[in-house]
Amino acid sequence: MAEINFIQNNEQYASNFGDRGKLALPPSKKLIVVTCMDARINPAEALGIKDGEAHVIRNAGGLTKEAVRSVVISQRLLGTKDILVIQHTDCGMLTFTDPSLREQITQAHSGNDGVTNAVKNFEFGPFDDLDQSIKNNVQFLKEDPLVLTGGSITGYAYAVETGKLRRVA
Amino acid sequence: MAEINFIQNNEQYASNFGDRGKLALPPSKKLIVVTCMDARINPAEALGIKDGEAHVIRNAGGLTKEAVRSVVISQRLLGTKDILVIQHTDCGMLTFTDPSLREQITQAHSGNDGVTNAVKNFEFGPFDDLDQSIKNNVQFLKEDPLVLTGGSITGYAYAVETGKLRRVA
Repeated sequence: MAEINFIQNNEQYASNFGDRGKLALPPSKKLIVVTCMDARINPAEALGIKDGEAHVIRNAGGLTKEAVRSVVISQRLLGTKDILVIQHTDCGMLTFTDPSLREQITQAHSGNDGVTNAVKNFEFGPFDDLDQSIKNNVQFLKEDPLVLTGGSITGYAYAVETGKLRRVA
Repeated sequence: MAEINFIQNNEQYASNFGDRGKLALPPSKKLIVVTCMDARINPAEALGIKDGEAHVIRNAGGLTKEAVRSVVISQRLLGTKDILVIQHTDCGMLTFTDPSLREQITQAHSGNDGVTNAVKNFEFGPFDDLDQSIKNNVQFLKEDPLVLTGGSITGYAYAVETGKLRRVA
């Protein structure tokens, strides 16, 4: 089991839930944030987003290609408009390549054809230049035919060392 | 631009960053949370997760199929172990079907072949039974050849009306 006593923490959280249970499903600020799963990032606190205000999509790296399904649902069904793409310094995605990770996994399961076949063409999406990656990920959304571009689509680098955002795209 | 003054909020956040800049890249509690992008969910607060403790993966619905890339990177490169899958009441994914959303998008861009082609086979992943979806999403991770199952993989329903978690799988 997880080392966090999340059951007890949640009971305490729910005991003081107040008016949060009345919040509406559509994000009140019509905002989508796409960012990394990194444990050091707390999007709500770092951006000052309150409950009910924004959709938050997170994956390894904050890759927008993998976020398209969520963005489309958010915009088309729940009325969001602006998109913030936030990637960050010291990201795990800067530390490996597809061939290196495929090799690591294949070796860890030597002789397991299921693993070998599943990983051999798997694209993990690493990148080697943070600013360029942010530009690419913003551009991807701007060019995707299913993403609405009536709002702003901007990209920021978040420094895990200082907590600061820097505009990149 | 977004209606949230996130630049100003972030300056305030960073001005009081303290020791957070010294946190390590690998999640200290070796935990992965997979949950929905819903604006009413604050995983850190609802579960009592502190900065640096857990990876948080979020997408429309909290679908684990879309989280596999992130889970693999988290486990293989950053040493995480347990996985919590959390889906929730009043989810947008309970409100539509693939054909209905495809039709809505196609009609909104009548005559645009780029949109029509992009959406015609798009799987948005709606579900019509919350508990069954949680069970399916936990099972998916347990059966994926690339996901390590040495830790626990459990599923919970989060009630946006009360803030409470309920164990489902």
